[in-house]
Amino acid sequence: MVLSEFSLIQRYFSQGTAQRADVRLGVGDDAALLLVPDGCELVMSLDTLVSGIHFPDDAAPADIAHKTLAVNLSDMAAMGAEPAWMMLALTLPEVNEAWLEQFSQGMRQLANEYGVTLVGGDTTRGPLTISVQISGLVPAGQALQRRGAQPGDRIYVTGQLGDAAVGLQLAQGRCQLDIDDVQRDYFLRRLHRPRPQVAAGVALRGLASAAIDISDGLIADLGHVLEMSGVGASLDVDQLPVAAVVRKTPEWWRLPLTAGDDYELCFTVTPGFAAQAEQRLRQLACPCVCIGTIDTGLGLRLTCQGREIDTQQLQGYRHFG
Amino acid sequence: MVLSEFSLIQRYFSQGTAQRADVRLGVGDDAALLLVPDGCELVMSLDTLVSGIHFPDDAAPADIAHKTLAVNLSDMAAMGAEPAWMMLALTLPEVNEAWLEQFSQGMRQLANEYGVTLVGGDTTRGPLTISVQISGLVPAGQALQRRGAQPGDRIYVTGQLGDAAVGLQLAQGRCQLDIDDVQRDYFLRRLHRPRPQVAAGVALRGLASAAIDISDGLIADLGHVLEMSGVGASLDVDQLPVAAVVRKTPEWWRLPLTAGDDYELCFTVTPGFAAQAEQRLRQLACPCVCIGTIDTGLGLRLTCQGREIDTQQLQGYRHFG
Repeated sequence: MVLSEFSLIQRYFSQGTAQRADVRLGVGDDAALLLVPDGCELVMSLDTLVSGIHFPDDAAPADIAHKTLAVNLSDMAAMGAEPAWMMLALTLPEVNEAWLEQFSQGMRQLANEYGVTLVGGDTTRGPLTISVQISGLVPAGQALQRRGAQPGDRIYVTGQLGDAAVGLQLAQGRCQLDIDDVQRDYFLRRLHRPRPQVAAGVALRGLASAAIDISDGLIADLGHVLEMSGVGASLDVDQLPVAAVVRKTPEWWRLPLTAGDDYELCFTVTPGFAAQAEQRLRQLACPCVCIGTIDTGLGLRLTCQGREIDTQQLQGYRHFG
Repeated sequence: MVLSEFSLIQRYFSQGTAQRADVRLGVGDDAALLLVPDGCELVMSLDTLVSGIHFPDDAAPADIAHKTLAVNLSDMAAMGAEPAWMMLALTLPEVNEAWLEQFSQGMRQLANEYGVTLVGGDTTRGPLTISVQISGLVPAGQALQRRGAQPGDRIYVTGQLGDAAVGLQLAQGRCQLDIDDVQRDYFLRRLHRPRPQVAAGVALRGLASAAIDISDGLIADLGHVLEMSGVGASLDVDQLPVAAVVRKTPEWWRLPLTAGDDYELCFTVTPGFAAQAEQRLRQLACPCVCIGTIDTGLGLRLTCQGREIDTQQLQGYRHFG
């Protein structure tokens, strides 16, 4: 580790995450030592969240921690991987012990729920920025990928889309929906405490032809699958799973098509496997719904009550335009 | 990846790093897929560099890239691991194409020299911050660790210590040493373009009883070895490898004892293996010198021309004091 003789990672984060037999050496040396079982492939992802960009400067520390890890767990879900180990790069403007206590507790809690151990990291001084690097395991050859969707495959999504966007509207005091306190809590929780669909990803191994997690919005993320697979798609917008309170609004389909941050899965499955995929997710109590079909023709076609929607007007959030 | 439909990682970094057969899937999916050979352990490290803290705001982009990767390669060296894959978290205030071109070129160059492939990452908008997560491989059970030094072991360092500190003085216009242009280039290069001792680390597998890289200064880093091994040490300060121009100054030993950023290795070896370790490093043209011995008594004792030096006055750089 560079320039940090006295490691905050060690003090706040090395205790309390899941104990795993495959960690030969965790936090406290120049690097971690890990065992990958024979017959498994290693799956690695990394995501960064920046204060003022991905969360407000005054966000609750435990929420920030949860979200940063959840975003990474969601990448594991999209690959059908079981998450195993994480590394944390934490850049902090100052050492605020109360903040660090809450942040580390939020991270520990989610890490434990998903069986992930913190095995290393680095703390530096600077504007609040958090990167999590996560590693998972998948039996060789069974990882889900973006490429692989074939014409005729059915397109599914898990859960409900647009919830996090409603949560953001609520958090920013610009929500015009008629929402009671229970619903309010639900939507805010969907924004701040997303539950990555890791078990669903694992259940779809050997069944899904392609998969991605919905972080940037359905159109943007499904677009990656289409591009990587060299196919197009037709979506029946009426099938999109969306909160009842959203569906009552004009052009309700904009939200589930373009809003990010839901961390549900979008996957494709050949018709012969569709029933089995649905059944496996039902056993996990993970809702899923078929929203369309993969086509030979490139591009995305959307129909809503039989009428076509112009996709030009719908854009996922672009980060560096 | 979160909120970055249009990936800068893909555009600037996915091409041109070493091709490796163990990368099943690199940049461009939700995660990378990697193969760890049977009989190998995985070695993982992560370090962050922040603009204005670890390098000046106007540092050359290629230097920043080199240093960030070098710091991580040095952790691999300290473990005796062969570096394999890297992930990059790049937070940028804006998309400056010239900057990105130079930065990515600097990173590619060093990655290629050390056989490392970029397999993923994330770009976000915010104050310039760079994290690199690196993974390496080591035959099972052969990793070098901080723990393991035994009383009687000899203590070695590679290379020359204090060079980067002289480089920093030069860069900041506060160097009072009598230095010509050739020396100036040398010291600046040692600061901006450190060469991690990866081959030396690999050569020390099975020989060194403990090892660490010198990032925070010899006293601080050797201190970690002593603490983790539950031992103390006596150093003969006269043996410290230091530039001739530094050795002429009063209290010249302060620099090699406390200055960081050299990324040399400090390792211990039982007397019976010392000649073999020296020979292996000689074959690599890697200079090394014995600077002391591991003691039973805790703490660090320094002697210079037979007189004891008070270690209380010598502190490695503490990051969050």
